[in-house]
Amino acid sequence: MRAIEITQYGKPEVLRLCERPIPVPTAGEILIRVRAAGINRPDILQRMGHYPVPAGASDLPGLEVAGEIVSGDVSGSDFAVGDFVCALVQGGGYAEYCVAPVVQCLPIPKGLSLIEAASLPETFFTVWSNVFDRGALLVGETLLVHGGTSGIGVAAIQIATALGSKVLTTVGSDEKCCAAIKLGAVRAINYRTEDFLEVVRSETAGKGVNVILDMVAGKYLSKNIDSLADDGRLILIALLGGAKAEIDLSQLLRRRLHLTGSTLRPRTVEFKATIARALREKVWPLLESGAVKPVVHQVFPLSQASEAHELMEASQHIGKLVLEL
Amino acid sequence: MRAIEITQYGKPEVLRLCERPIPVPTAGEILIRVRAAGINRPDILQRMGHYPVPAGASDLPGLEVAGEIVSGDVSGSDFAVGDFVCALVQGGGYAEYCVAPVVQCLPIPKGLSLIEAASLPETFFTVWSNVFDRGALLVGETLLVHGGTSGIGVAAIQIATALGSKVLTTVGSDEKCCAAIKLGAVRAINYRTEDFLEVVRSETAGKGVNVILDMVAGKYLSKNIDSLADDGRLILIALLGGAKAEIDLSQLLRRRLHLTGSTLRPRTVEFKATIARALREKVWPLLESGAVKPVVHQVFPLSQASEAHELMEASQHIGKLVLEL
Repeated sequence: MRAIEITQYGKPEVLRLCERPIPVPTAGEILIRVRAAGINRPDILQRMGHYPVPAGASDLPGLEVAGEIVSGDVSGSDFAVGDFVCALVQGGGYAEYCVAPVVQCLPIPKGLSLIEAASLPETFFTVWSNVFDRGALLVGETLLVHGGTSGIGVAAIQIATALGSKVLTTVGSDEKCCAAIKLGAVRAINYRTEDFLEVVRSETAGKGVNVILDMVAGKYLSKNIDSLADDGRLILIALLGGAKAEIDLSQLLRRRLHLTGSTLRPRTVEFKATIARALREKVWPLLESGAVKPVVHQVFPLSQASEAHELMEASQHIGKLVLEL
Repeated sequence: MRAIEITQYGKPEVLRLCERPIPVPTAGEILIRVRAAGINRPDILQRMGHYPVPAGASDLPGLEVAGEIVSGDVSGSDFAVGDFVCALVQGGGYAEYCVAPVVQCLPIPKGLSLIEAASLPETFFTVWSNVFDRGALLVGETLLVHGGTSGIGVAAIQIATALGSKVLTTVGSDEKCCAAIKLGAVRAINYRTEDFLEVVRSETAGKGVNVILDMVAGKYLSKNIDSLADDGRLILIALLGGAKAEIDLSQLLRRRLHLTGSTLRPRTVEFKATIARALREKVWPLLESGAVKPVVHQVFPLSQASEAHELMEASQHIGKLVLEL
């Protein structure tokens, strides 16, 4: 099969088309003929050598796909060979064929294309696990999403809004502000021209937000803590602004704040299966009703994976980048 | 009535015996004729001017008492005027009479003296709320308690051990190590001669502890984080080692750590009532069976509150200091 491999760690051009054997599914796994594969920031970190591949996972990049089940073990699922699904995978998504644990598969939401469906798993699993499970965002609470037009951002804004929360978000341009508002954010903050802490205070009558979904970490830590309401939860999912920072623990103590974080890829199949069930029950109906929409910025042929990575690193896109096969 | 007041912020000698009117209970409150009152670190911070008295609370120090219900509103409780109880109070414990929300009262555990019962509420409410609710310590998990011979420490070691956890603890002398081991700790670490991180690693086969109950904060933060197992919870309840520290957020993210904290006094009566119910159900039987024992280091007459504060500040005691009336 054709696939994209990381020939060595480095810039986007290290991604090269190659020939690989078709992977073989084991118990609980299915083989998918991939029609589309989503691109995510962890793929870039993996390409740069900053994100070690978990034991047993493919060395090929790609954490989410959509396509047809062509063989494998569908027992215990309601899928059959020949069904089209989208799936969160352990790696190997940039390829014509990919294996997935069947419990990490979800049906293609009615009305969505395979390209749109391929753009969902990584960000929707991440948002559900962090904002709703770990962050326990409640109806009526306020969520601050940093990077509101990233793949994670467009998912978080829409899902939280659809489930009854008020969403504030930071983005890097006025054009992105408009896009975030269209997705449902009550206020989008251009971090290049506005101070997000000041806006949070004015938008929450000084109380702060209940949950923050943050991929910036270090350089935002102090303002994030100041932006939280009493009992607020700061959830880290990446460290784009550095890992180290000074922290004022008196705020944590006095205001009973929670500071935590997680990454998705190293979690167990059982853990991911639990999220898949929650998404199917709570979020797939929102995709089918149109309350939540996939946001695909651009589609590339498999052979142009390096161009897709270049675009993601330039951060000028809004939503997801997808490879089509 | 006679009471101890804080004549001005400062050293222990600012505590003075005075005459005050007997307080008047309102709806949901009872009046207790105090027979014993526990001393706690927040009393010292209040005396020094570092712990503002919540709105509506007595300016007199004292957060826990035991004595006889002499009047008030016992409706909705199973207490009657004439019963002896111990209670978590909003302040005013260093006095002959004190009001308490009836939902913050607990029966005197069978076999315990009023002096022993007065030593329980503040530390037991704090430990339950932080270790078991906030920290969600599970049977079979490992707890690290800093300050193992403090009032908080002796409660945490015993309750967690009795409920099926393995407890490690830090203390400041070999004598205190012996005391902590007698209370049930599997390993007591003299922080003056041993590195607690090294001991945690060797005692947990390199995995780390699941929960840390910490009153040191700043200067321990980095080692506390290194001492946590994946998915571990660091719970701050005081800042004796400073509020500010550098933090490595990559550990939080990669290992899904939780960093949080709380203080008891500003919480609502409803919140404290919930803890009181849990203590009565889960911990009072352990006190009545002898699995958990009050640890009273020394008893002082009310007039010697300043001497009791001096002793607590010297940190040479093991367990609780109590005023007797």
